[in-house]
Amino acid sequence: MGYTVISGGVTAAKGFRAAGCAAGIKQEGRADMAMIVSVKPCVVAGTFTNNKVKAAPVVWDRGFVLDEKLGQAIVVNAGVANACTGEDGMIYVRMTAKAAGEALGIPPAYVLTASTGVIGRQLPIDRITEGVGVLADTLGESEESGTEAARAIMTTDTVSKEAAVRVTFPDGSSAVIGGCCKGSGMIHPNMCTMLSFITTDAAISREMLQKALSDVVPDTFNMVSVDGDTSTNDTCLLLANGLAENEPIKEEDGAFRAFRAGLFAVCETLAKKMAKDGEGATCLFECEVRGARSVKDAKLLARSVVSSTLTKAAIAGHDANCGRFLCAMGYSGAEFDPERVDLTLTSSAGSVQTFRNGVIAEYSEEKATEILSQDEIRCVIEVHDGDCGATAWGCDLTHEYVTINADYRS
Amino acid sequence: MGYTVISGGVTAAKGFRAAGCAAGIKQEGRADMAMIVSVKPCVVAGTFTNNKVKAAPVVWDRGFVLDEKLGQAIVVNAGVANACTGEDGMIYVRMTAKAAGEALGIPPAYVLTASTGVIGRQLPIDRITEGVGVLADTLGESEESGTEAARAIMTTDTVSKEAAVRVTFPDGSSAVIGGCCKGSGMIHPNMCTMLSFITTDAAISREMLQKALSDVVPDTFNMVSVDGDTSTNDTCLLLANGLAENEPIKEEDGAFRAFRAGLFAVCETLAKKMAKDGEGATCLFECEVRGARSVKDAKLLARSVVSSTLTKAAIAGHDANCGRFLCAMGYSGAEFDPERVDLTLTSSAGSVQTFRNGVIAEYSEEKATEILSQDEIRCVIEVHDGDCGATAWGCDLTHEYVTINADYRS
Repeated sequence: MGYTVISGGVTAAKGFRAAGCAAGIKQEGRADMAMIVSVKPCVVAGTFTNNKVKAAPVVWDRGFVLDEKLGQAIVVNAGVANACTGEDGMIYVRMTAKAAGEALGIPPAYVLTASTGVIGRQLPIDRITEGVGVLADTLGESEESGTEAARAIMTTDTVSKEAAVRVTFPDGSSAVIGGCCKGSGMIHPNMCTMLSFITTDAAISREMLQKALSDVVPDTFNMVSVDGDTSTNDTCLLLANGLAENEPIKEEDGAFRAFRAGLFAVCETLAKKMAKDGEGATCLFECEVRGARSVKDAKLLARSVVSSTLTKAAIAGHDANCGRFLCAMGYSGAEFDPERVDLTLTSSAGSVQTFRNGVIAEYSEEKATEILSQDEIRCVIEVHDGDCGATAWGCDLTHEYVTINADYRS
Repeated sequence: MGYTVISGGVTAAKGFRAAGCAAGIKQEGRADMAMIVSVKPCVVAGTFTNNKVKAAPVVWDRGFVLDEKLGQAIVVNAGVANACTGEDGMIYVRMTAKAAGEALGIPPAYVLTASTGVIGRQLPIDRITEGVGVLADTLGESEESGTEAARAIMTTDTVSKEAAVRVTFPDGSSAVIGGCCKGSGMIHPNMCTMLSFITTDAAISREMLQKALSDVVPDTFNMVSVDGDTSTNDTCLLLANGLAENEPIKEEDGAFRAFRAGLFAVCETLAKKMAKDGEGATCLFECEVRGARSVKDAKLLARSVVSSTLTKAAIAGHDANCGRFLCAMGYSGAEFDPERVDLTLTSSAGSVQTFRNGVIAEYSEEKATEILSQDEIRCVIEVHDGDCGATAWGCDLTHEYVTINADYRS
């Protein structure tokens, strides 16, 4: 029992195929469309943005979860978000699903869609439907095909993001969970990440699939912040086709817990990859809060520290200005005693305690700067107020973030 | 009845003197201490940060409001915030008050203090007490003395910020209200601005003085955001010495309303100056929301738009990427119908409507870029959902902000 990390992404599980292509939505022949297809219909779980402004594909995909519908394919485009697009936006989602249904020989009602890119612009629907045809013709079940799909959904991402595990159940049978995600700016998920697609061949009921996802997302994707902006398009979809032929998971038993642990590993890996690839970022900034009186307080504290523009700018400058960390904790809304806070910075270069009992400690600034110059930085905050903890992930705030976002549409 | 804008700041009202000096807290002989003194004891009103981590001077000054104490002098230092400094920090506040009391010949209990600068560092108390002596010897009642004080409290501010009005009461008598403030980074006040000091010669009871300030701050200082970070030191103090000899204001009558209107004008002017001088900012970014179903919703919407790093980066790039504005409205927590939103950008270069009924409108990108290239930009958002409104102020997010904050302590 347990899980093993394996290579691959959305095609790691049995019976899933994927493809990516350049449909001409973005300029200069860059890949901008992806498709993920199961050989048989799947039960579907999903979590979505809680932004009041929801993109058309988010409205469409939520219907699968709310109405307990089966899904068999996901069509994704980058370049245009299909948000703030009114009735036309919804019509274009239906046209995309229809085109995919025809190309794949499945009901359009089995096709989920997702979009990411500029808000307020209409989809170039002819290019989308043409792209759907190209994708349907080039689907493959190899690891490379999964990577092609992961690459095609990138916007300002600099690397594609995949993760997969093999889960072993108590009875010795096993299943695979694999996924990919994109997200680099406008990242401060409240329901899940920007776009994440996870597939599994586990046999599991729709209820248990949704429960596993809903349990895992708050501690993984929802603990990432790049810039505090919750997108209109945040979507995390999880499809299960049952081809692993394990004893179907129908209740919260040992097999469910094994599945959930494997799903957690996939989501946590994707979440960290997303934080590390934050727009303009040069490092992953992890903050673990320990000793909080509740998990809610621990989360508020950890998230506030990684979300503060001032802590992020300090890290970009490799400057251990940890008073800013305490300041961010102070306005987080969490309960804690500022005079009992211990704070330690750590990375592959070593570790220094910069605050003890809420007051600055003696430490070498030179050492602190060396620690903050690595590409994965960790801050451990002990608040001595209970036994609850949480971890959040972010990145530094650099000139490059401003450059990327000052002129994103051009 | 009404008010007239006049020149000056904290020395505009009768009986107030001020001074600034370089006490050696900052490097290179930069001004870093200020003092404001009334010729007689004043009733005191104040609003303070709601950050759980409160600087020692904030704890000290809150005592004046909570215990209804009189005040006669304010000693301010820049360079070190005296936050996260434990018991020593509080001892240094008392030593500062004692030194000022001795130098001015007033009880130390009449001395308020305020600090701004690096968090977690102890005050160089010898330089502070020495500076207090220099300030006491150089106090002046001229406009220039007020400006010197306003300059001495600057940190990363690029200009000093002052405002003053003469209020005329219904009976024909009048009084003056004048103030100064500093604040450029770590600005997202929840109770008031970073540091703001306002003086008046109006005769007014402590209760009415506090009521006027508490009424005005939520719509002025609290509607400014530079970077979403609520400081540990936010302080707004208002001292009234009664020398104008108007009929004392003791209830919410016409004279009270006239006083409050004048105070509003002073606070609004200071708030806008602060937003425009945001760290690295090249423009003032004002967002007015109209037609909301409640003032609370209008405020949430306006504040979310000016606080979003993505809208701020778009403005830095003179890019009318207004989908981001709708996105920021969507995650603000406010009630509104995204499909009824109209959005207009306006400045001295003209105006364009970029969204109509939640969908992008036809407009000239060239014109929009010209509008966004001015140094005061206004965004008017009509949500067609009621008759409540609110205005928030922010600035653009530039490379310079990152440069300033990546290496603030060096």
